[in-house]
Amino acid sequence: MSKPVIVQKFGGSSVANIERIKAVAKRVLETKTPKNDVVVVVSALGDTTDELEAMAYQISKNPSEREMDMLMSTGEQISCSLLAMAIKALGHDAISLTGAQVGIRTDQSHTKARIERISEKRMRKALLENKIVIVAGYQGITHDNEITTLGRGGSDLTAVALALTLKAKVCEIFTDVKGIYTTDPRIVKEARKLKTITFSEMLEMASLGAQVMQARSIEVAKRFNIPIHVRSSFSKEEGTMIVKSNEKLEETSVRGVTCNKKESKVTICSVPDRPGVAAQIFNDISKASVSVDTIVQNVSHTRHTDISFTVARSDLSKAIKAAETIAKKIKAGQVLYDRDVARVSIIGSGMRSHLGIAATMFKALAEKKINIEMISTSEISISCIIKEQVAEQAVRVLHKKFNLDKVNQQPR
Amino acid sequence: MSKPVIVQKFGGSSVANIERIKAVAKRVLETKTPKNDVVVVVSALGDTTDELEAMAYQISKNPSEREMDMLMSTGEQISCSLLAMAIKALGHDAISLTGAQVGIRTDQSHTKARIERISEKRMRKALLENKIVIVAGYQGITHDNEITTLGRGGSDLTAVALALTLKAKVCEIFTDVKGIYTTDPRIVKEARKLKTITFSEMLEMASLGAQVMQARSIEVAKRFNIPIHVRSSFSKEEGTMIVKSNEKLEETSVRGVTCNKKESKVTICSVPDRPGVAAQIFNDISKASVSVDTIVQNVSHTRHTDISFTVARSDLSKAIKAAETIAKKIKAGQVLYDRDVARVSIIGSGMRSHLGIAATMFKALAEKKINIEMISTSEISISCIIKEQVAEQAVRVLHKKFNLDKVNQQPR
Repeated sequence: MSKPVIVQKFGGSSVANIERIKAVAKRVLETKTPKNDVVVVVSALGDTTDELEAMAYQISKNPSEREMDMLMSTGEQISCSLLAMAIKALGHDAISLTGAQVGIRTDQSHTKARIERISEKRMRKALLENKIVIVAGYQGITHDNEITTLGRGGSDLTAVALALTLKAKVCEIFTDVKGIYTTDPRIVKEARKLKTITFSEMLEMASLGAQVMQARSIEVAKRFNIPIHVRSSFSKEEGTMIVKSNEKLEETSVRGVTCNKKESKVTICSVPDRPGVAAQIFNDISKASVSVDTIVQNVSHTRHTDISFTVARSDLSKAIKAAETIAKKIKAGQVLYDRDVARVSIIGSGMRSHLGIAATMFKALAEKKINIEMISTSEISISCIIKEQVAEQAVRVLHKKFNLDKVNQQPR
Repeated sequence: MSKPVIVQKFGGSSVANIERIKAVAKRVLETKTPKNDVVVVVSALGDTTDELEAMAYQISKNPSEREMDMLMSTGEQISCSLLAMAIKALGHDAISLTGAQVGIRTDQSHTKARIERISEKRMRKALLENKIVIVAGYQGITHDNEITTLGRGGSDLTAVALALTLKAKVCEIFTDVKGIYTTDPRIVKEARKLKTITFSEMLEMASLGAQVMQARSIEVAKRFNIPIHVRSSFSKEEGTMIVKSNEKLEETSVRGVTCNKKESKVTICSVPDRPGVAAQIFNDISKASVSVDTIVQNVSHTRHTDISFTVARSDLSKAIKAAETIAKKIKAGQVLYDRDVARVSIIGSGMRSHLGIAATMFKALAEKKINIEMISTSEISISCIIKEQVAEQAVRVLHKKFNLDKVNQQPR
């Protein structure tokens, strides 16, 4: 009986003001046809989230997470009711629903709750009444009626989870860029929009700095194979489809270059080389609430080794302090750090089966005299930590070296 | 087992900014003792309600009432979570609850819902955990989980209804004035704050222009005899207690003078004097969405009579249009109007049993050559419609005439 559903998610910049909300309403109506239903997920208006957060921190240095969720969830409640009004003003029936009203049941981890299940009953009822359903993103409710939020970027997760629940034919993520690019077009003007990308590639892109979609939501979409279409709210142009895999995959190797500038490197020198020492170090560092990114430990030829790791630059002073305490405790040497490093990565699902990719990358950087300070690799990516001031140059060099500017080399 | 509860309600001006929220938190903590619990009701921060409303009207001339409730209820959700944070920052445990979370069940009349019942379970649980409970005012939830609001001033109603549910020993209404005055201190500098006032007097005060507390909430407090204390959020001074009746009542007559300036008068001349004609007129006028205040029809000595009525000035053009249509239909004469009139009233529960009060009022106005255009009376008030430009003068004259500036004449 029920029609196919298209889930559309509009981020904060897409609903930053009244005019944009009206534009989104028009866009939603263009998607609603007699043959399909539409469920829309919205984030809070523009800067609302930041403004609410600022108020809380003016009141308390350490506001209760339960009360933060109570506060922050209002942002999406405001935007979803306004969007429902805007759609109704254009002549189509619509209804806004909070996370609680939909029945987005989460666990009790305030500010970073996990969705346990979603009821489709209320949404289905509204869709059968030919209403467009607008759901407040980023929020849910616990079994005992407590309001929870899903963490920053949580509206993406709401959209993906609703697409799963409603067996949507597609989940469209509207953003202020036209899709996923081979690299940041602000750095490389020849950057090309990709027609398709795999979930795994997208996941690397997201966690390595291309902040188009929340990583957790991509993981869920990957697990349940939910088709995602990342596209611009300001253009009708097709964006990038995120797919499970692509038959043409073998033809390609590197799909994109990413760059994350806000990193710092810390090195603990002359660490006694005995079993368990690394565990001890990173256990203590995580206790200091520092989230460590890449870790590199070289093979040691003596009884001592150097251990380096990268952290978000905002965590650097905490990291240094923790590292110095640990160094003393384990009788290691001095702690060195480099505040201004960047991570430049190449990403591509077919990469591992192509020989020589890493060598090509390192050689391209060497030719431009760009010194590599650390290297780490994953199944579908290779990352180099380099000085921040040469990061953009490195991105341009790699983008060109792997022919990402040429359509024929990247047939998808 | 449970301790006596004090309900405190803080209006929008009391929580207009972060500093005031912190001050309210302090005030609440001063009320919380080992011997009693505190439940707080808050309105939306300062201008939030107006700002949200403005956004809605930018989107739609006629926004859906259901969506308005969804939107407007966020204002109180924001203020109650911030107040809970502020109290916790001062070291006492607190929890904010939305209308839905408390279980303030209403009917389905969006934007003007009526409370059907309130569950005390969740509040009691939190109070037993020694928490201060902060409830979002002005809002409730229907049996099918729709968010409703109680109309402007609805936070007062929430406070009174919670006081009833929790059998509170007092319901304190915090506002930006120090209590109920014999008249508006901005007009008469000798105006005195009353120590007590009856519910009926307060009801007349509220509906006649002294906008300290919502009329509906006073009606509920009156029906269930809930002790109300109207007082200032900026001062420790005792305010005015609203009580059922007062033994000393017989000693006094006039308790206060009120003035409502924004009225207009409309007269339909030469209305055929036959049964049912007044009903026809006011039925048609109410169909034009004009709310009529006082109606005066003089005894007629011919077969025609003049019918006058007052309306809010904002409704005047609608009222004239409706009156002209009706006049034609019923073959009445011309429609006259006076845009700028005011209603000046004297109020007092003991008034009716005191002879000559009305005559004293009329004489006092006549002595100052203030012409009375219409008169209406209720059980505990006498109102005169006069020209707006002499309204303040009339208030001063009456305040003096009835010795309201003298404490001994008003021993309570």
